[in-house]
Amino acid sequence: MAAPHAAAATTGSALDWSTDNCTIARAMRVLGEKWTFIVLRDVFLGVRRFDDFIEHTGIPRQVLANRLTTLVEEGLLRREAYQEPGERVRREYRLTTKGMDVYPILVALREWGDRYESEPAGPPLLTVHRDCGASVSVHLRCADGHELASPREVVPRPGPAARRRRDRD
Amino acid sequence: MAAPHAAAATTGSALDWSTDNCTIARAMRVLGEKWTFIVLRDVFLGVRRFDDFIEHTGIPRQVLANRLTTLVEEGLLRREAYQEPGERVRREYRLTTKGMDVYPILVALREWGDRYESEPAGPPLLTVHRDCGASVSVHLRCADGHELASPREVVPRPGPAARRRRDRD
Repeated sequence: MAAPHAAAATTGSALDWSTDNCTIARAMRVLGEKWTFIVLRDVFLGVRRFDDFIEHTGIPRQVLANRLTTLVEEGLLRREAYQEPGERVRREYRLTTKGMDVYPILVALREWGDRYESEPAGPPLLTVHRDCGASVSVHLRCADGHELASPREVVPRPGPAARRRRDRD
Repeated sequence: MAAPHAAAATTGSALDWSTDNCTIARAMRVLGEKWTFIVLRDVFLGVRRFDDFIEHTGIPRQVLANRLTTLVEEGLLRREAYQEPGERVRREYRLTTKGMDVYPILVALREWGDRYESEPAGPPLLTVHRDCGASVSVHLRCADGHELASPREVVPRPGPAARRRRDRD
């Protein structure tokens, strides 16, 4: 613990703004339930069928059923019928565009996990560019094409839907 | 619902591998508790103090205390003492490098949330490059420098710590 430094109060700007319509909170409302990223990880790995999710992940059946229903209702997955010879029609799960667009979040989670939660041997999974075989990672870049090495190069600005907190008006 | 297509079983390759040491699951063990991303969002916005988190986010006090303790124990935040004139020494919360490295995940979450969960007026918050003011976003790129437009250009490969599932040996 460092010695107490001179008090520098939290910058007023963040506290002035409402978090009611925060899109990170809204994204986590959809994605933040336990097991949801695990289900999505498996879909991206090619798993599509209820019993295969169970076998590969160990998710309790009722939890998996709930997560899949939510992901379909929220439009990240769609159900598609398939039929094995001699069996009844069953459903498998495919990514929609909205589901596909979760991919950068998964890659960013995996990179952080690989960096801080890997075993000494390294990560269990690599993701590589199909065309050249080089490993894939996420990068921060601005619309003018500058690569950003650190969050310190990024500053927040109120967006078009920013609202001042009523109790601070 | 589309008509049943010819059965195409889940590719065997994902099911062959153990998920015991999955780094996405491990990342979510640390980051996946309800409110954790909200706390980290606020820290990146410059909020540092217990009562400011409460005021800005509405997190229940005991939940906030638990989340902050976890984030300190896991090494994403550090406590630093500060002292307002005439008051007792208190603690505020600062990001460590491990905490800073969560930033691409937050930006990816925000982008997805902005795309699918914004109000008609648009997002509540913009993140811009400090030097040029252009908006910042995440991009997928391979180590050979190719930009990837879609997850379909990425393929999974077993990493150095990949383990075959014992029940499939």
